Amino acid sequence: MASSTLLWKRALPTTSRIVRMYSTFKPASPLTVHDINQHTIEAKYAVRGSIPIRADELQSLIDSHPTLHGLPFSKIINANIGNPQQLQQKPLTWYRQVLSILQYPELLDEVKFPADVVDRATTLLKHLGSVGAYSPSQGVPYIRNSVAQFISDRDGYDASPENIFLTGGASAAVTYLLQILSAGPNSGFLIPIPQYPLYTATIALNNAKPIGYFLNEDNHWSTDPNQIRQLIKTNKEQGVDIKALVVINPGNPTGSILSEQDIIELIDIAAEHGIVLISDEVYQENIFKGKFLSMKKVLCELKESHPHLYSNVQLASLHSTSKGVSGECGQRGGYMELIGFTQEVKSVVFKLASINLCSVVSGQALMELMINPPKPGQESYEQYHHETSAIHTDLETRASALYESFLEMEDISCNKPMGAMYLFPRLHFTEEHYPLLFKRARDQKQLPDDTYCIELLEHTGICCVPGNGFGQVEGTYHLRTTFLPPGTEWIEKWTAFHKAFIQKYKV
Amino acid sequence: MASSTLLWKRALPTTSRIVRMYSTFKPASPLTVHDINQHTIEAKYAVRGSIPIRADELQSLIDSHPTLHGLPFSKIINANIGNPQQLQQKPLTWYRQVLSILQYPELLDEVKFPADVVDRATTLLKHLGSVGAYSPSQGVPYIRNSVAQFISDRDGYDASPENIFLTGGASAAVTYLLQILSAGPNSGFLIPIPQYPLYTATIALNNAKPIGYFLNEDNHWSTDPNQIRQLIKTNKEQGVDIKALVVINPGNPTGSILSEQDIIELIDIAAEHGIVLISDEVYQENIFKGKFLSMKKVLCELKESHPHLYSNVQLASLHSTSKGVSGECGQRGGYMELIGFTQEVKSVVFKLASINLCSVVSGQALMELMINPPKPGQESYEQYHHETSAIHTDLETRASALYESFLEMEDISCNKPMGAMYLFPRLHFTEEHYPLLFKRARDQKQLPDDTYCIELLEHTGICCVPGNGFGQVEGTYHLRTTFLPPGTEWIEKWTAFHKAFIQKYKV
Repeated sequence: MASSTLLWKRALPTTSRIVRMYSTFKPASPLTVHDINQHTIEAKYAVRGSIPIRADELQSLIDSHPTLHGLPFSKIINANIGNPQQLQQKPLTWYRQVLSILQYPELLDEVKFPADVVDRATTLLKHLGSVGAYSPSQGVPYIRNSVAQFISDRDGYDASPENIFLTGGASAAVTYLLQILSAGPNSGFLIPIPQYPLYTATIALNNAKPIGYFLNEDNHWSTDPNQIRQLIKTNKEQGVDIKALVVINPGNPTGSILSEQDIIELIDIAAEHGIVLISDEVYQENIFKGKFLSMKKVLCELKESHPHLYSNVQLASLHSTSKGVSGECGQRGGYMELIGFTQEVKSVVFKLASINLCSVVSGQALMELMINPPKPGQESYEQYHHETSAIHTDLETRASALYESFLEMEDISCNKPMGAMYLFPRLHFTEEHYPLLFKRARDQKQLPDDTYCIELLEHTGICCVPGNGFGQVEGTYHLRTTFLPPGTEWIEKWTAFHKAFIQKYKV
Repeated sequence: MASSTLLWKRALPTTSRIVRMYSTFKPASPLTVHDINQHTIEAKYAVRGSIPIRADELQSLIDSHPTLHGLPFSKIINANIGNPQQLQQKPLTWYRQVLSILQYPELLDEVKFPADVVDRATTLLKHLGSVGAYSPSQGVPYIRNSVAQFISDRDGYDASPENIFLTGGASAAVTYLLQILSAGPNSGFLIPIPQYPLYTATIALNNAKPIGYFLNEDNHWSTDPNQIRQLIKTNKEQGVDIKALVVINPGNPTGSILSEQDIIELIDIAAEHGIVLISDEVYQENIFKGKFLSMKKVLCELKESHPHLYSNVQLASLHSTSKGVSGECGQRGGYMELIGFTQEVKSVVFKLASINLCSVVSGQALMELMINPPKPGQESYEQYHHETSAIHTDLETRASALYESFLEMEDISCNKPMGAMYLFPRLHFTEEHYPLLFKRARDQKQLPDDTYCIELLEHTGICCVPGNGFGQVEGTYHLRTTFLPPGTEWIEKWTAFHKAFIQKYKV
């Protein structure tokens, strides 16, 4: 290429480097995985692991050869991740009208938007300036005020905007918290099993120790405080410094909701042992059965009645715009509320947020729209109410349809969905009844739930995640599936696949 | 509160916990900073450090007492951070029209947008689905293709979309790279001094070792390859495993541009020692004097002429939507291109991106709009061209005005601005001539450049960052200021302050 030769000639007369060039140096080899941070290699994240990667490959094959792909299906059904808008859930008009104005305020002169849309956009613009400007690292103060108001209204107890950090989804909050709390390989984190693998992955990245406490599948995936206390005792004896107890409520992948009693027990444990509570409550709006109680509310009630016992409890509670009926995953909005942390520790959180400058400002605005929606009487209310009710009902219907199909399938059991976006059915496979499956899995260096999910994908295009990606009692096998894909055709395909699978492997 | 009492009564009969409650446990103390990850405490980030925090306090005071604040100024001038839209730079119409449609596609039926805006929005919607859906973790494939095309056109050498990762600003890319490359406290990172403190902060968070190489202030902040080779030798002898060499071009905070010869020397060093090059090129469009050459282009030229020497070089080059004439900081768009990395190492980067799910999708779209703007003849071209030229000229004018003012100020010297958004003038303070300043600084546990910046803030409302936040040769003092604030009034105030400061302290 001409420009290269030119460069070379230009470089020649001005440097002694060329002499070195021709006498040459011995070029070094590129890095291998042995040269890099081993904790980044150890971290596992099954939700986007090998099976979803294979699903992407299959989808690319279909896209590039729409008719000649030779596969027994014509599209991938992504049930591996809670991504509603990928699966045709329509965004809420209220959100998107305001966000379009924030992006292009000139629209206010060109389009007749509902009065409350105009009001909210104008107010937000006044406080943001521009969504293209960095906000304060902790988040736009006006929006942090709104979040504090939302929490106060939800719980009946005051919340302070000083304790609110706006984050890029809840994932960013988890990253900050686990990074700050990981003070070396002896730092322990109690996590539910099964869990959302963001936790084990982030614990691995921080070279800390995950301590799994098993949820009780036979009792709606409830927690067992005695088991947790025993784990604390054993681990303390082994020199582990337990930093935090992670709670996912409503449960991911389990779809369960914690009872008030379970929450009280968990707070007791935190109070007694000085363990930070991390309460991942991103599915708090996805409730189909029972009632969601925030950990903050229960903590405030306990503090009120027994201040001497509970005033030191440290709680980080997380929320997101990605789930609920919002489903705005790609917009990366979230918040965490930090309760009971010392000012010094909060300053460290603030510094980490500063190093990342700020979370995306349109995502911060979306959080405000989510927690502070149109009220009855306002112009957008009817449409907002209609759209959100339809989504909620739709999700509930899909959850039930899938749940009932699982009940019909041989050797599958499943807890009734209470919340979140997932079912976590158990596959009752045993070596005695499925010897060929176990042999095949061993030959492929898989577990039987891997084999099931791989065959499900290859035969039907349905992509879900094996239970071992979330953790499960040894010798039990599960899978996690969302119930987000529309229609029932995919469930029928699954049912047919399952029959054939049983026929192929069961003796 | 009534609800609390109710809860309490409900809880009473169902649990044995209450007995324990009244017999009580001893509540533990909350965490102190001694209990947490010490690396998070060590990390420093001056751009949003104590002086900017003080500036925020002053602004709050002004906001809450608009007339009675008692300060000698009526607003804060944020020259501490490159945040153009905070300082009244208007966003580009082309960007914002397309982004508004992506947020609310129904606008296409309601507003008559330019044809190329409609086309681009429609194409992006086809490939994104919705900005509310998670994208693939590496980024939307269509946009990665666009980025690869942009790089090919810029450099005259092919780029592959497989090597492109879309990230939440360039900061997220730095976080991934430094996390992956930090394999323990003996992992070394060569960073320029002065540097953008994201690097030292992230190195501290990863418990790795920063190795500063000094830029030569007397020669436009150029690099000295001999000094770098010497540092490699010394550090290798001490058992440090040098992982990467960070280059910021155009320079932050220096405002300089690297020469072709400097770039060749840096690539030689990387090739010989198997050191990853991290080339932070986020200011590549902010060029006022000289010519920006991407490290990728120079590497490709060297590879073409001497493949046996350069084919193993590993380069990560970073770009962002936050700077340039775009200035869309709050939208968090960015990309990194990884060249020469093994597939295995790239898989680890992919996994880290997966754990964070995806970067904000509207920010990904914005990257596409930035690198693939309207072309002559298209309907938006004239306006786009007019707006971008005006911003560029405006920045150049402001840079010159501020630079010339510094030249007039006693005991200040400054390199002529070539690129980026900053000036990094030197404050020629010595103990001999400024004994009171040095005494005062020592009494306050400050350095003289801290004292200068604090007094500048308290007297004028101008917020900039002391040179020690970026690193400087010991015994020299600097500050970093953006030239983004509009108008010249603030510069006049600065000039007056400086005169008074000299009068107060100089003997």
